[in-house]
Parts: sequence; structure tokens; C-alpha cells
Amino acid sequence: MIQADVVIIGGSATGLVAGLTVKSNFPDKEVVLIRKEEKVMIPCGIPYIFGTVGTSDNNILPDEGLKNLGVKIVVAEVTTVDPLNKTCTTNIGEVYSYDKLIFGTGSVPIIPDWLRGAQLGHVYTIPKGKPYLDQLQHKLADAKKVAVIGAGFIGVEISDELCKIGKDVTLVEIQPHVLGQTFDDEFAVEAENLLRNRGVKIITGIGVEELIGHIEVSQIRLSDGTDLDVDAVILAMGYRPANELAQSIGLELNQYGFIKADQYRRTSVKDIFAAGDCAEKVDFATGKLSRIMLASTACTEGRIAGLNLYGLDTFSTFKGTVGIYFTFIGDTGFGAAGLTEKQAGLEGFNIVAATFKGIDRHPGKISDAHTQSVKLIVSRKSGVILGGAAIGGKSTGELVNVIGLAIQNHMTINDLLVTQIGTHPMLTASPAGYPLIKSAEIAARKMQE
Amino acid sequence: MIQADVVIIGGSATGLVAGLTVKSNFPDKEVVLIRKEEKVMIPCGIPYIFGTVGTSDNNILPDEGLKNLGVKIVVAEVTTVDPLNKTCTTNIGEVYSYDKLIFGTGSVPIIPDWLRGAQLGHVYTIPKGKPYLDQLQHKLADAKKVAVIGAGFIGVEISDELCKIGKDVTLVEIQPHVLGQTFDDEFAVEAENLLRNRGVKIITGIGVEELIGHIEVSQIRLSDGTDLDVDAVILAMGYRPANELAQSIGLELNQYGFIKADQYRRTSVKDIFAAGDCAEKVDFATGKLSRIMLASTACTEGRIAGLNLYGLDTFSTFKGTVGIYFTFIGDTGFGAAGLTEKQAGLEGFNIVAATFKGIDRHPGKISDAHTQSVKLIVSRKSGVILGGAAIGGKSTGELVNVIGLAIQNHMTINDLLVTQIGTHPMLTASPAGYPLIKSAEIAARKMQE
Repeated sequence: MIQADVVIIGGSATGLVAGLTVKSNFPDKEVVLIRKEEKVMIPCGIPYIFGTVGTSDNNILPDEGLKNLGVKIVVAEVTTVDPLNKTCTTNIGEVYSYDKLIFGTGSVPIIPDWLRGAQLGHVYTIPKGKPYLDQLQHKLADAKKVAVIGAGFIGVEISDELCKIGKDVTLVEIQPHVLGQTFDDEFAVEAENLLRNRGVKIITGIGVEELIGHIEVSQIRLSDGTDLDVDAVILAMGYRPANELAQSIGLELNQYGFIKADQYRRTSVKDIFAAGDCAEKVDFATGKLSRIMLASTACTEGRIAGLNLYGLDTFSTFKGTVGIYFTFIGDTGFGAAGLTEKQAGLEGFNIVAATFKGIDRHPGKISDAHTQSVKLIVSRKSGVILGGAAIGGKSTGELVNVIGLAIQNHMTINDLLVTQIGTHPMLTASPAGYPLIKSAEIAARKMQE
Repeated sequence: MIQADVVIIGGSATGLVAGLTVKSNFPDKEVVLIRKEEKVMIPCGIPYIFGTVGTSDNNILPDEGLKNLGVKIVVAEVTTVDPLNKTCTTNIGEVYSYDKLIFGTGSVPIIPDWLRGAQLGHVYTIPKGKPYLDQLQHKLADAKKVAVIGAGFIGVEISDELCKIGKDVTLVEIQPHVLGQTFDDEFAVEAENLLRNRGVKIITGIGVEELIGHIEVSQIRLSDGTDLDVDAVILAMGYRPANELAQSIGLELNQYGFIKADQYRRTSVKDIFAAGDCAEKVDFATGKLSRIMLASTACTEGRIAGLNLYGLDTFSTFKGTVGIYFTFIGDTGFGAAGLTEKQAGLEGFNIVAATFKGIDRHPGKISDAHTQSVKLIVSRKSGVILGGAAIGGKSTGELVNVIGLAIQNHMTINDLLVTQIGTHPMLTASPAGYPLIKSAEIAARKMQE
């Protein structure tokens, strides 16, 4: 038996940040991080190994931070946990005692039961393990026609990257638009136009019925009856929490299979915490169970778990998921935070939505200027900002982080109208035409209608 | 007599946003904007007309927004105001009656009384008027050696631009470092290194004693006794509020010459408002009078004046100046919000400061990755964020706007530690190594020391 104070299961975003947080704040504790992967992929970078980054070897989450602090990294799989005796056993037969245990087991790609042919050769998913991804990259080398099923962020980014390296890519999405969980239609259409211009074939509003082939996939059958010839298929149909271990040891799961976890990220079993993709989340605005999985949110949760491990701290609670997502297509950034207009409407919010389209430099003649659109979704009566989205250049990400912070601070449109922002010709939109504030002005007037 | 409801004096950032705000919110009012300039310069773009943007014609603040709403633009100078009869008279003899009057008269360059030789030929300042700037650009064409006196943002940006077009530029700053009002030394030194690498000669810690020459300047004498040969001198020694008119009609000014104005931007005289560079400001953190002039803050103030013109609105108040500044040197963005470590110390705050240096893409192998440093200045006991600064790539501006929003929301380090941010390989730092949050982690640990 190996003595530890804190055992963390999982080495991706959650495990990394939890490990850093625990060891930084409780340096006397023996912290062991047990993960399956020899080398861990930077999760958000995975789609980019196929083109932009070139190889998974350029996409490794560094271990230095953990090692420098003295976190012990063990490459193994935890096969069982004994919560009564507070021990973990690994597949190589080691037993670790723990005082506190953190589940950061993450998520795995969904392969729907109903999808016939999913077991055929040349049908792939995008998991986070390096060996699989390396093999996939190798096997795709010979494929010409690739179908990507599902146009969430992973599907869109993989499609764009494969197109970039010369594949004939068809992206199939059953919803009316790509990225439909994150963007309202008019923003999603801009993404579609860019993807099409870059050579990605897009089929929306039509699902996949079946994958067809002998041993290896050769066609996909769509729900409208047409068949597409393919050399390979990538299923990008979402992820589910990787919770077999959690379930086997009796941690309570919610209806979507996430480990139940409170605002301190405590599970139903004493001294066991869960954070990241495997852990239950509620939506910041609605209070409903959320299924949003984001590495950035996982980092926040991992930090919160770590801070609350040895004594709860009311300052350090998880206040619910604000989905803050970005992607980048060609030279155009897309970002969203919180609810879309459509989601807010479906939830029953009485809202106003306002969009302003400007330019992200001033004067607009500066050479790398890019149009910048900002949309705000606002609770009509209170003016509280429920969501926002932006399309623009490379500052789109941090701009949407401004919106994300506004949401998390329960800021209202009135607050935004008196907020000071900084501006600079080479870095931002003009102060008088700053799209975030201009859209707030429009929203303010709509609220009075 | 020409009847108006609202007269705005000044057509730069304040006047533009005030005009847009008033006419959008009170469309039935007759709004007249009186400005001296036929064409108005985008204020932040002025340094860039010399190099990057090429000509002032590429740096014009558009009138379309005002015109489309129905704001009447008059090009003239208001020579006097009669607050009793509520009229303005212009230099072309027109008299406008008003119900509400907004001063947005801006600021003018400071030429210190003590500076001998300032009246010599080829000694210039950087005002906001297009004719002067066009002439300056024309006259500088033949100059080889240019001295820029004063290394605030304008001095730094002008120096870099003139260097870019082949001038032999010496930047002289009496303080120990360039940009010393905005950045702590270690950040300022990075700016100096970049400027030097780009060819700007920098002299710091030494002032200018005298400008020497017959008719035209030919040398500058420094406070250490050395003389520098020059073909032209640009004085970038700060700006003072342009308040001759305000003073002449009896508006109360504060000790620094700014028009006294409250949180609604009301002056000491009924129905007269003031906003932007000409109007009194207090510092957000200290409550002391502030002398910070920023176009972005002027826009906020212009909006606030407009919103409060016809009935005060407690939601729409100016909460004090948070200086949020950016600049860009070569491929490196610099940004600051709120107090520097040095300022906070001088003010008597008990603070901790924390800096984290990371990279603004993930993985760092992405081709346009840039190092990204974030520094936070935090009130030790409360954890309230008093200031922050960043150096990085082109997303530095919006990143510092995130910090600016945190300051304006009185966020604490604990709040930041549980804040969700969005990340993307091509747009931001990694979620586990996001410098803003990492510096917050360091600050949190320092607070416990």
C-alpha cells in the first residue's frame, strides 16, 4: 500500500489544475495523480493536430508544473476504489491510500447505439488519447473522402483541418445549422459560409441513418435516402461522462450520467470530489442540469475542488456553467457566452436581443481590420445579460471573455452603458463604435419599447 | 436666433457619443453639434497617420451616424455662452438657443511656460486638428533628426511611427522610464527594449532644459548639459482641458482646470453638462481628482451626460475613472487598467502584486503565438483588484478589458479564481495556463503570507 493524502484520477484539464491547486495550497500533502496516458493531449488542441499543429507531439500538456511542485504522476488505470477503507487500486496492482479523492475522469465520445455500421473499419471518433489519435492520423493519410458526422465545435474544427490538408470533407449535421447549440442561426450561417468557402461540404437538417460497408465503411446513408461514398467516417456526435468507475463504486450519478457534485464539487460519498467533464453541472442562468463540457470550465472546477478539499470555503464555489466557447475558421473568430437567443426563448425568458456590426480596428483602414459583430441577449425587465456572441478577428476570444465576465457578475445593460473600456487603433474597435457597447445601447432602447 | 433643444460643443469622442445618445433616446429633440473641425480626427489614431495609416484622410471620425439620426452638425467656434438666456453664439455670428448644453471641448497639448525656445520654428505639438497635423506631416518630410519630448502614449507612438518612416528619433523622458504613469518599471522596460530594437533612441531620467536655435530649432539642451542636434522637436508633454470658454462663462473649474462635473456630468450651472477631457474626473479607486484623459472614457462620459440630460437616472452615473490604456509596439500589445503597483503603494494601499508569464495560444507551437504576461495589483485584505497590466499579442487589449471589467465590478481574487473563461488554441492562452487566472492564484497565495 502506497500512502497518499490526495489522489486525483485523471490527468487532463481537471486533474492538472486540481493537482496544481492542491499542492500549491497544501504543500505538505502527498498528492498523487493517476492517469491512463503517458502523454496527455491539450484537449482544445486536438482538432488542430491534423493540420495546423501537424502532429500530436506538438500538442502535449506539459507535466513540468506538477512535477516541479512535487505532485507524483502515476501512469496507470484505477480499476477500483474502496471508499470505506479509502484506497484506490490500479491495473498494475498498486494500492494507494487516500484521505481525499478527486475524480477527473473526463468524457468519452458518444457512439449512438442506433447507428448501424459504427463498428466498421475506418469509422473513428475523436477521443483524447494520444495513441488513438496518432493511429487515426496515420490511417487518414490514405483517405480522400471523409465524412464528419456532427457539427459541434469538434466536428467543425476537424472538418476544417482535414479540408486544409486536402481531404474531400463532408460535414453532416441533423440540426438546421452547424454549431446550433452555441450560436443563433444568423451567426451559424456565417460559420457555414466560411466553411463552404474553405471547401468543406456541408449537409444540414439531414441525419445519418446508417454506415455501410464490408469490414470497412464505404458509404454513409443519410436520412433522406441518399448514399455518400466515403473512405473514412469521423463521428463527432458529442461526449458522455466517463463514469464507469464512479458508478461501480456507488457514486450517485444524475440522469445524464454525470457524477452528482455540489457547489464545492463534493460527491455523494464523503471525501470524494468530482470536477470537469465527469461531474454534474447546472446552468448558470437556468439552474437546470447542464451537459456542457469545456476544458476551461473543467479548470475552474478542478481549482474549486482543490480549494475546498481541506475545509469548505464559501468564497470558492462553483456558481453554475456559463458555456463560453470559441472557434476560429480561416481568419474569423467565433465566440459565445451564456444563452443564445433561441435557448433563452425556449427557457421562457422574456428577452430582447440586439446585434451591432462594426470593425475591430480604428480607423478601419488598418491592414488587419476585421468586421466585428456582437450580439447580446438580455432579460427584458431587469436588463440582466443572459448571453452574448461575437464574430470578428483574433481578439474575438478575449472580447467574449468580457461578455462572460459581465454575465458572471450579473451585469445589466445599464451597467454596460456606463462601463469604461480601453481601446487602441491596432487592438480594438473604436471607443465610439465599440460593438459590445453599441449592442448594449440598442438593447437598452429595445427594452423601453 | 436658431432654436435648438440640445447644443453640444465639440465634435470629438464626447460630442459624437453624446450626440448619438441624445438623439437616439430623445428623437424629438433638435440636437445641434457645433465643432471647429470640418473633419474630425479619430483621436487614438492620430499618432498612426505618420506611418501605419499614411495620411489623416484615413483617420476621419465618420459623421454618418449623427447625420442619419438627424443631429445637425455646425462647423464653427462657440465664442460665448449666455447661461441665463440659454444661448450660444458662434464666431460666424449665429446664435443658438438651447435647453440643455453639453461641453465636450476636449483638451489641448501642454507647452510648459518654463520651456525656453518652445516658440521656435519646427517645434510642434500633437493637437487633434487635421489642418495642423497635415501641415506637421508635410513639414516633417524634410526633417531627419526628430526629438520627441515626453514618453507617455502619444510620445511613444509618435516616436515609433516616425522611426518607421525613416526618421532618426530620440525620445526624451524625464521620468526613469517611458510610459511610467501607466506601467510599473518591469513592464515599461519591455516597452523600452522593443522601441530600442525598432530604432528609437531613448533617453530617460533626463529632462529638457531648453530648445535652442535661430528662428528654427537646431538643438535641444538636456538637463545633464548635453546638446542634441535636431531638425524638429515634438512636444508630447501632456494635455490640459480646453476650458477657456467654460471659464469665461463662469463654470466652476477644479484645481487642475477641469470643469467641475458630478456623477451625472452636471456642471455648476443648471442645464449645462460637461464630459470627456474637459470635465472633472475622480479616480475609481482613490476618489481623488484624476487627470487621466482617454477617448474611451470620454465616450462613456458623453453617453452618461446624454442619458441624464432630461431627467437624472441613478442607473447611469459615472463611477470614476479607471484608466484603461493600450498601446502596440511592433507585434506586442501593452495594456493597463486601474492602478499600477507603484501608484497603489504611494496611495497607501496595503497590496500584493502578482505576475504570471505564459503564452497566448495553446499549444504554444501555433505560429502566431506570443508570450503573455499578466500582472494584478490587489488589496491585500479584501482581495479587491485595484489594477492590472498585460503584455502580449493582439488580444492584449480585450484581455485587459476583462481586467477593467473585473475592477469596475469590484471583483476580488476569490471571484477570479472561480470565474469561468473561454479558451481556444488559436485565440487565447490555455485554460490551465491562462495568465490572468494564474496571476490571481499567485496573488491569492501571497495574500495568505
